[in-house]
Amino acid sequence: MDIMKMTQVDLERISIKGFPEIIYGLHKTTQQILDVALKLDAANQPVMITKLSFDKWKELEDKLPNGFYFESSQIWYSRPFPTMKNGKVLVLSAGTSDYKVVEEAAVVCQWMGCQTDTIQDVGVAGLGRLLGKLENLREASVIIVVAGMEGALPSVVFGLVSVPVIAVPTSVGYGANLDGLTTLLAMTTSCSSGISVVNIDNGFGAAYQASLILKLMNQA
Amino acid sequence: MDIMKMTQVDLERISIKGFPEIIYGLHKTTQQILDVALKLDAANQPVMITKLSFDKWKELEDKLPNGFYFESSQIWYSRPFPTMKNGKVLVLSAGTSDYKVVEEAAVVCQWMGCQTDTIQDVGVAGLGRLLGKLENLREASVIIVVAGMEGALPSVVFGLVSVPVIAVPTSVGYGANLDGLTTLLAMTTSCSSGISVVNIDNGFGAAYQASLILKLMNQA
Amino acid sequence: MDIMKMTQVDLERISIKGFPEIIYGLHKTTQQILDVALKLDAANQPVMITKLSFDKWKELEDKLPNGFYFESSQIWYSRPFPTMKNGKVLVLSAGTSDYKVVEEAAVVCQWMGCQTDTIQDVGVAGLGRLLGKLENLREASVIIVVAGMEGALPSVVFGLVSVPVIAVPTSVGYGANLDGLTTLLAMTTSCSSGISVVNIDNGFGAAYQASLILKLMNQA
Amino acid sequence: MDIMKMTQVDLERISIKGFPEIIYGLHKTTQQILDVALKLDAANQPVMITKLSFDKWKELEDKLPNGFYFESSQIWYSRPFPTMKNGKVLVLSAGTSDYKVVEEAAVVCQWMGCQTDTIQDVGVAGLGRLLGKLENLREASVIIVVAGMEGALPSVVFGLVSVPVIAVPTSVGYGANLDGLTTLLAMTTSCSSGISVVNIDNGFGAAYQASLILKLMNQA
Amino acid sequence: MDIMKMTQVDLERISIKGFPEIIYGLHKTTQQILDVALKLDAANQPVMITKLSFDKWKELEDKLPNGFYFESSQIWYSRPFPTMKNGKVLVLSAGTSDYKVVEEAAVVCQWMGCQTDTIQDVGVAGLGRLLGKLENLREASVIIVVAGMEGALPSVVFGLVSVPVIAVPTSVGYGANLDGLTTLLAMTTSCSSGISVVNIDNGFGAAYQASLILKLMNQA
Amino acid sequence: MDIMKMTQVDLERISIKGFPEIIYGLHKTTQQILDVALKLDAANQPVMITKLSFDKWKELEDKLPNGFYFESSQIWYSRPFPTMKNGKVLVLSAGTSDYKVVEEAAVVCQWMGCQTDTIQDVGVAGLGRLLGKLENLREASVIIVVAGMEGALPSVVFGLVSVPVIAVPTSVGYGANLDGLTTLLAMTTSCSSGISVVNIDNGFGAAYQASLILKLMNQA
Amino acid sequence: MDIMKMTQVDLERISIKGFPEIIYGLHKTTQQILDVALKLDAANQPVMITKLSFDKWKELEDKLPNGFYFESSQIWYSRPFPTMKNGKVLVLSAGTSDYKVVEEAAVVCQWMGCQTDTIQDVGVAGLGRLLGKLENLREASVIIVVAGMEGALPSVVFGLVSVPVIAVPTSVGYGANLDGLTTLLAMTTSCSSGISVVNIDNGFGAAYQASLILKLMNQA
Amino acid sequence: MDIMKMTQVDLERISIKGFPEIIYGLHKTTQQILDVALKLDAANQPVMITKLSFDKWKELEDKLPNGFYFESSQIWYSRPFPTMKNGKVLVLSAGTSDYKVVEEAAVVCQWMGCQTDTIQDVGVAGLGRLLGKLENLREASVIIVVAGMEGALPSVVFGLVSVPVIAVPTSVGYGANLDGLTTLLAMTTSCSSGISVVNIDNGFGAAYQASLILKLMNQA
Repeated sequence: MDIMKMTQVDLERISIKGFPEIIYGLHKTTQQILDVALKLDAANQPVMITKLSFDKWKELEDKLPNGFYFESSQIWYSRPFPTMKNGKVLVLSAGTSDYKVVEEAAVVCQWMGCQTDTIQDVGVAGLGRLLGKLENLREASVIIVVAGMEGALPSVVFGLVSVPVIAVPTSVGYGANLDGLTTLLAMTTSCSSGISVVNIDNGFGAAYQASLILKLMNQA
Repeated sequence: MDIMKMTQVDLERISIKGFPEIIYGLHKTTQQILDVALKLDAANQPVMITKLSFDKWKELEDKLPNGFYFESSQIWYSRPFPTMKNGKVLVLSAGTSDYKVVEEAAVVCQWMGCQTDTIQDVGVAGLGRLLGKLENLREASVIIVVAGMEGALPSVVFGLVSVPVIAVPTSVGYGANLDGLTTLLAMTTSCSSGISVVNIDNGFGAAYQASLILKLMNQA
Repeated sequence: MDIMKMTQVDLERISIKGFPEIIYGLHKTTQQILDVALKLDAANQPVMITKLSFDKWKELEDKLPNGFYFESSQIWYSRPFPTMKNGKVLVLSAGTSDYKVVEEAAVVCQWMGCQTDTIQDVGVAGLGRLLGKLENLREASVIIVVAGMEGALPSVVFGLVSVPVIAVPTSVGYGANLDGLTTLLAMTTSCSSGISVVNIDNGFGAAYQASLILKLMNQA
Repeated sequence: MDIMKMTQVDLERISIKGFPEIIYGLHKTTQQILDVALKLDAANQPVMITKLSFDKWKELEDKLPNGFYFESSQIWYSRPFPTMKNGKVLVLSAGTSDYKVVEEAAVVCQWMGCQTDTIQDVGVAGLGRLLGKLENLREASVIIVVAGMEGALPSVVFGLVSVPVIAVPTSVGYGANLDGLTTLLAMTTSCSSGISVVNIDNGFGAAYQASLILKLMNQA
Repeated sequence: MDIMKMTQVDLERISIKGFPEIIYGLHKTTQQILDVALKLDAANQPVMITKLSFDKWKELEDKLPNGFYFESSQIWYSRPFPTMKNGKVLVLSAGTSDYKVVEEAAVVCQWMGCQTDTIQDVGVAGLGRLLGKLENLREASVIIVVAGMEGALPSVVFGLVSVPVIAVPTSVGYGANLDGLTTLLAMTTSCSSGISVVNIDNGFGAAYQASLILKLMNQA
Repeated sequence: MDIMKMTQVDLERISIKGFPEIIYGLHKTTQQILDVALKLDAANQPVMITKLSFDKWKELEDKLPNGFYFESSQIWYSRPFPTMKNGKVLVLSAGTSDYKVVEEAAVVCQWMGCQTDTIQDVGVAGLGRLLGKLENLREASVIIVVAGMEGALPSVVFGLVSVPVIAVPTSVGYGANLDGLTTLLAMTTSCSSGISVVNIDNGFGAAYQASLILKLMNQA
Repeated sequence: MDIMKMTQVDLERISIKGFPEIIYGLHKTTQQILDVALKLDAANQPVMITKLSFDKWKELEDKLPNGFYFESSQIWYSRPFPTMKNGKVLVLSAGTSDYKVVEEAAVVCQWMGCQTDTIQDVGVAGLGRLLGKLENLREASVIIVVAGMEGALPSVVFGLVSVPVIAVPTSVGYGANLDGLTTLLAMTTSCSSGISVVNIDNGFGAAYQASLILKLMNQA
Repeated sequence: MDIMKMTQVDLERISIKGFPEIIYGLHKTTQQILDVALKLDAANQPVMITKLSFDKWKELEDKLPNGFYFESSQIWYSRPFPTMKNGKVLVLSAGTSDYKVVEEAAVVCQWMGCQTDTIQDVGVAGLGRLLGKLENLREASVIIVVAGMEGALPSVVFGLVSVPVIAVPTSVGYGANLDGLTTLLAMTTSCSSGISVVNIDNGFGAAYQASLILKLMNQA
């Protein structure tokens, strides 16, 4: 249809925010994704595409510039930002089933220049696993806690450390879990008031926030 | 209105269930409550009234048989059942604000003949408080865990013990707590699968279930 | 991704809880499932995998140790715990459509060492079917009641017996059933206060709780 | 404000529907209520006002024509329709707390000319009470079943009779009851498919439907 | 699994309710459906199966007794009840998209012995279509109104007639329709108080209720 | 607290939007309201305050500039904009109980310079009342339809006219009405697609939109 | 089934509303769609079919009269109405993912005779894109704002212009977006009170409303 | 009741987290509040009580140690932590009605030692107000954005800065706002992915998180 205009790429975002526009691939066609990716790359900006399904990536693989694809987390990026000296982000998860979201968070943190580590499968049903990692927890500057079901892990973790905790509810669960909505609401109403929360399965968002915090530390 | 019949008292319940009909006072008039109470008492059955507000109790005080009123938990009973020899119910709570529900559970357990104890204010935001009570936890035969907000405590407790845990969500919290609905759904979708849950603020229901479990132990 | 750590198996859970970690298969890859299963088996612990789809089982069949697969309930286990002498768990259901959840509960009870029986298809729309089984009901020590739709069966059953009733809402129904959420909420707000409830379709959780109750009886 | 027009009374409704406009008093001012009542009365139509609080009634008492006020159900009417010869409506309730809604239904049925009876407090937690009334149930032509909490009673009643059952969910309950919404949804998803349902606490609506059914019987 | 008992057929229902158990096919296996169907047929009872998908029917076609399959409404029945002399049920719908539910209601009414007619596609967006059918509306004894989206049709129809109206919300719509939940709630809170409502897409339930009303008329 | 800055008045809004900032009084203190009102008045802009309770108005009455207070709709304004020559807004309501919202819409339309009229109490339960006003409906340029409960009126009205219809759901109703949320969702999913909807009880918003439409007509 | 009547086409709608019945294709069979389309075409009325999937269109392509199919927006029409002289509708979107809804709105506007333009991908996360189009915004007579996720764009746009803004929530988003329900509710509770809202993804409804506004301008 | 144990104060929290236990006053009795406050004070820890209503404060005023009470935000504290040298927290709000939450956030930030500033009433309906403060925004290290209604402000602000943004939804709004739940969900599904969110009206939680971030900057 002739009056339908082209996608607009926000090339100035990098100068305002320190990071470029990131392409959210979920509802876009491969052509729409490619258009934005090439324009960002042409402007010499690092490119990141999130929620890029394996099938879409296969279609795009030959047309995109050099880069890396992470299949579990459905992320592609061209090249990461330089690693920051100070601080570390730790991505923690309650269960093995949260793997994809953990990887999404970790990949984004690394891309944004964070020293990053992960500890998986330390949910509160077997507290020993978490308490055995207390030292690792206390070395981190920011902790991203990924959990599904009742979302209890961030409350417990935040009680054990003195740094910001960002909680990521996941859609792991069934029935009363309501596809993660219960997890989201539970984390938001945590008794460990002081946690902040991002959208369900939004490892990307938590990583972005964590990276901005590390950037502040490195500027200070 | 002449076709409106009188309340029916279920005097046979005690022979079927081992416990008499218990009067749920919330939506009843004092006259309706009194009618049932007197009929149960006349049949020589122990009487318990739950959700009996202080004002209603004041109206009824002189008309009811001898008994005990618990103001926080809004329970009145005439006389308890004999104490059972084996087992103990422990009522645990996340925060001081859960006091009323804890008392409701404890009063009902005692009335039904359970050895009963309580530990309050051991929420997961400061895990040390709970871990310091591990021995007490492991002495109990059944644990009732009362918690509001994100309702994480039952998940953690159940991971530490080998006995049945009954979770009572409370309406303590605000905003995303949705008057305890979030707590209820979170507990129901706990990663410590094996917990069972009762209605919001329903200390009575949890105590009833716990008492039936103790009765089984004492019959065995 | 190199910073993604391996799954952690909780080998100590059996000493704390009397039962080992049970593998929740729904969101895990077959590789993740196999890793945990083999580690538990190597530690000489009985292995159970729940929500293991037929397809995943087919992939794993040759790699797992000897065991049993239950297709309707999607459970695999290596070997059951020894049967306990005292008490019996009865799994009751409202309709034939609840079959899978009934099987899940029954398989888990048997695995955990419970004497177990089932009565299916005794929903309240034809009360005669239930009343005809009154003796069977009264022989049980714990009753698991599985029902979908409006979830009325546990309320009725609990009025007929003097033992603990654990209600399992199922997602059987449509429209206002809201995939079982209505059933869950209805059971939680039962007029037969004293019932406890587990998550939608969570036959496993109810069986776990029931087995712990039988264990108490056998220890007493 | 001058452009705000007067209330319009629907004086023709009685010729279309057999019954006049009924005044829903909840959100109206006493002046608005009185205007409509007097116009209906002037047109020689029987007048009924529902949800008329005691305070509003006190304000209106001297200005309204002769009539009857029912305090529990907050209904006022001037005079009933003549009683129909055939059929009987039975209003049944689960608990004493449903009293107000039962009275609302019974008063409206009587006003619309139905032979009417009530049985209260026969909830499913003690099934004996209901089964003891089986003959009364089977004499009725239409049964209105009023219940709060999990709303199981209509499902059970409908399985015992061969006549239409209209279910009225009430807001009796707390927590997961969600002010009657759970009851409404549960009744709507009843396993006794064939029940129809009206709004929460809407004894009036059920009575209206029941009366139309009796009218059909009397016309046939 | 050996402790899983067979399906129980409720052969006595026909003597209590005047109609036999009806087989709800949605969640049942073809074998489970067939078992019940053959037992009912062997007891010389008319058999009806609802929510029987085309694929399941194809599997069963040769094994079932003679009968009729209605593809749109997914109903199969062996033989209808004799037609009642008095009264008529009219099934009305708002839009062509409600076709399946209309057919379900009409088939069930005919099976239960009702004189039945349908008028489709008379939604309130073009009121002329409905007003042009006013005579047909006023000939009916009971009207089933099937509508999706905002569910306004029953409110309008009920204002035009003097007989019982049973509303069937459908899942026709999108977005704020919430798969018919909005329609259900809207119909339940209709300003034409006196309508009763059944579950979403539950043409069967409405037909059952309508048929019981016609039966009352024919018995009178 | 010293770092808490003063309220900011948006004096430039009138030049951008043609209308000044309007003061939403619900959550503001009288002092906050007064500050903004006086600044707008000092800038020679017409002032309007919405959701100004009677009590707050009484406190402010002597301090505000000359103006008009409408008690039902809780609006105060200093002076209206000049009346536009072309077009007319008609505010229509389903029931007398919607009075306050109708007045809010009408007052705002008049203030913004619209020729305005109202027709109340023409809900769909008695269609004759609406059809009797068809000419008035067809004289309007824009119609605001105010309705509670199932919110059917806008669907019906929009089918009868050829001009824009703006629907205002009200919180009139109870139970399944969910304080107007059902009404809002129902109107949004109207079969008369082409209606637009504003917030519950938001007569103001509908009037604002209607006035902008009339302004377009008068500019053309 | 013989009593199932044919679809009714509303041929008079064009004379009442100025536009013919528009065929909502989502739940209809191709045969039902074709019947209505041919009857409208035979009556010499322009035909439009919405939500016509590509597969359905392929089935119908040869049987429909000449016309145009828009694949993204799933619309087919035979011929547009003549273009109106005055005014312009601008369709604005927050993100590229909203493309389909934008096209739906634009196609419908053009069909109904509006001068139409679009600006896509100007969401509030990069405000510069929107502010750079301020002139285009201020040339429009009506603005349709299409946005998913938190739906902030209409609030911002409405603050920048003096014409009616119609907001279309889209289902673009995930998790807490609740398939667009959050977007719908957020837009409805906008701080820029005066916006009106249509159903989720309902570009058609917004375009219809916008076109009626342009028609008023052209009649004035 | 004798088995009800005393409140437990978590005196070790300050050594783990750097900040002491903070007393959440909403559901506690004044005696419970006082007990904890005095124990913390006796341990020489700064004391803060949140959600302390004016009435409760009046009761406690003479018994508490010296300190400061903030009436709008219902906070009392004994003495603040020393001010940190680096960084600044900016608390921004959409409207004057968000005042209380802004004050809560600002008071807590100051107590925790943050340089703190506020800008109120810069909601997106009049974008000029926000854009006029761009320099202030860009001086902050962390921005807390407080907004009710559709919660659009954090999305816009985050697009303008390069530092972490923490969003606080407020319950300011009505109808579709659902007491802030819509605001919470909208903020969580923001198109400016990278924002984190706290509970409704939880200025405290946002301030706590912001202060931890500033602490990281000051440690680096």
